[in-house]
Amino acid sequence: MSQSLNREEPNYFGAGPALLPTSVLQQAALDLITYEGDSIGIGEISHRSKPAIKVIDDTKANLTKLLNIPDTHEVFFMQGGGTTGFSSIAYNLVANYAKRTGKKGKVAYAITGSWSKKAHEEAERLGFDADIVVNTKSEKFGTVPEYSEWKSIDKDTAYLYVCDNETVHGVEFKDTPPDSYLNGVELVADMSSNILSKKIDVSKYGLIMAGAQKNIGLAGLTIYIIKKSLIEQPTDDEWKKLNIALSPIAFSYPIVIKNNSAYNTIPIFTCHILKLVTDLLLKEGGIEQIQQTNEEKAKLLYGALLKYPDFYELPVTNSKVRSNMNVVFRLPTEDLEAKFVKEGSERNLQGLKGHRSVGGIRASIYNAVTSKSVKLLVEFVNEFAEANK
Amino acid sequence: MSQSLNREEPNYFGAGPALLPTSVLQQAALDLITYEGDSIGIGEISHRSKPAIKVIDDTKANLTKLLNIPDTHEVFFMQGGGTTGFSSIAYNLVANYAKRTGKKGKVAYAITGSWSKKAHEEAERLGFDADIVVNTKSEKFGTVPEYSEWKSIDKDTAYLYVCDNETVHGVEFKDTPPDSYLNGVELVADMSSNILSKKIDVSKYGLIMAGAQKNIGLAGLTIYIIKKSLIEQPTDDEWKKLNIALSPIAFSYPIVIKNNSAYNTIPIFTCHILKLVTDLLLKEGGIEQIQQTNEEKAKLLYGALLKYPDFYELPVTNSKVRSNMNVVFRLPTEDLEAKFVKEGSERNLQGLKGHRSVGGIRASIYNAVTSKSVKLLVEFVNEFAEANK
Repeated sequence: MSQSLNREEPNYFGAGPALLPTSVLQQAALDLITYEGDSIGIGEISHRSKPAIKVIDDTKANLTKLLNIPDTHEVFFMQGGGTTGFSSIAYNLVANYAKRTGKKGKVAYAITGSWSKKAHEEAERLGFDADIVVNTKSEKFGTVPEYSEWKSIDKDTAYLYVCDNETVHGVEFKDTPPDSYLNGVELVADMSSNILSKKIDVSKYGLIMAGAQKNIGLAGLTIYIIKKSLIEQPTDDEWKKLNIALSPIAFSYPIVIKNNSAYNTIPIFTCHILKLVTDLLLKEGGIEQIQQTNEEKAKLLYGALLKYPDFYELPVTNSKVRSNMNVVFRLPTEDLEAKFVKEGSERNLQGLKGHRSVGGIRASIYNAVTSKSVKLLVEFVNEFAEANK
Repeated sequence: MSQSLNREEPNYFGAGPALLPTSVLQQAALDLITYEGDSIGIGEISHRSKPAIKVIDDTKANLTKLLNIPDTHEVFFMQGGGTTGFSSIAYNLVANYAKRTGKKGKVAYAITGSWSKKAHEEAERLGFDADIVVNTKSEKFGTVPEYSEWKSIDKDTAYLYVCDNETVHGVEFKDTPPDSYLNGVELVADMSSNILSKKIDVSKYGLIMAGAQKNIGLAGLTIYIIKKSLIEQPTDDEWKKLNIALSPIAFSYPIVIKNNSAYNTIPIFTCHILKLVTDLLLKEGGIEQIQQTNEEKAKLLYGALLKYPDFYELPVTNSKVRSNMNVVFRLPTEDLEAKFVKEGSERNLQGLKGHRSVGGIRASIYNAVTSKSVKLLVEFVNEFAEANK
């Protein structure tokens, strides 16, 4: 069998699972059949074989290099995406807090869009004492207030949870809450839709969780970066005394870490894709380069939309927190929105429909979406406004 | 980019992740780049898009056809493998039992190898009242006693758990416990390493769980087949009264089923592979044909081993429960075992080393391992015994 693995470079703006670099998919396609001269493919080998362990270790090393992860932190992988993270974070960090302090501890959430809202709901559902320090639902998640306006965090709090980029509502944090606000409480961030899109200071976070399926890989694998002091869990006897919900064993961070992310069968093909994506990012100049390109792309697109303020409406009214990854906007009517999606599609600009819960238009301009694609979209944004305003 | 997607047909006997049909991998490789004439690949599309939903639905339909799944049962998929299943089964079925009966209920386990042992440990760890009805550890998991010798099941028991095929120890059930033994208790089976290898009567099971990564797919997706009457869960108020451990939301069967297995982002590429594998099985004659081939392969290999009873030792002493999937055997010394693995590898017979916990040799002869590969292994088994006995 010899068929072309070529494709026209797509202009795809879907929010996730999302576009991956063509060169990565081509290499992965070949590796699916035979891997590194072996007679079988990367998806068929044991997760405890040397080549599989090397894939895991190389991916961790690439992430460490790209994000400049300090020795104080540990990288590991789990199956599932954000939804699994919502549960596993609460289970593990509350138990770790109890281990360290002897107290059950509360948890705190900043609700700035539908994903942080779901994370909070899951913590509550599992029976944790979950505070809300800010909730912008009444403002339709169109802004994030200054930290000085956030409710102060109770001192016996295991962590403050933020969603660094809200994929549905297009809200992104451009900094972290100041130490004076956190007051020693650990910061936890869901970066599922913007990990590796920009430079971050990992040392500021107790834990970072990021599903791979948006900016950097296939669905089915999630990156965790945890401060080592937050790993340890209570002993069995301590658990019983503390009366804290116990996670399923596959969610236990110490067990996953001790087994180099392969306590259960890690989807090694999916990890390999992540390895190839991070190889490419390193080759292309690392995080600084990616961040610069992403900022330029976002500036270009927001700029075009802002040129027609009577035609394009930006639901994220606070320009400081507009996402560089998910650009959401509305048109004057739903009919025009449908027309925009249809005509875009006819020009091969795909995946522009907004999330079903909010409607409108969403252009996700992740790492793999090229500047060329964004320029084509910008042309269309201009022409559509001129033709329909 | 145009490179060959060919490979020499491998002779690979690894236990999992394991061999997949070359034609499936070739199609999957192409679909990774562009799917069905679309400009992007199957791993890049939204899990809620029409093509993704079709992949899920087609895979369910294929499984229903192959396994003749009756209307009384429902198929769904979750991430994770067996380890996730160990937890999710206990959480969900105990809660369902409580919902139906108002009682907390016990759970019961038949321990016939390391996987059922782990399943039992997890149920205990999560705080469920977990009985053991049979445990063959003291016989080194080399046999399964007749059902008449199993400890009777307490009547207030949510389910009896068996591992239908113990991948490490090579023990496989060839039938199900009789109704007279079960006495109305639901039967739950882990079929991770033998699903779709043989005909089964799904109506006899309350739940079947099978990680895809051994016989039928990549790691990262697990098939569940559940009796519909076992799906319902208590209301929030009922939970509180019952004081039963609550599963993380991604493990909640009713939520997963209600969302057609895409409550969280289903790894759609992995599901697509499962679809292609089941397409092929249907095309090649369905379960009857597969079962016949698998039985012939196993007979051939066991036959060769039994020809040299002073050289090859079968740790599964009870011939009735020898696995047709994982054929485990020992040689007179560990040095000879190492030599066997080395010389096998030199003949391109790969993946023969036994599980690290038990040593010895293990030849996994899953669906994708051809009769030709087994014949080559049989030749080697014969020659090696003649040369070294």
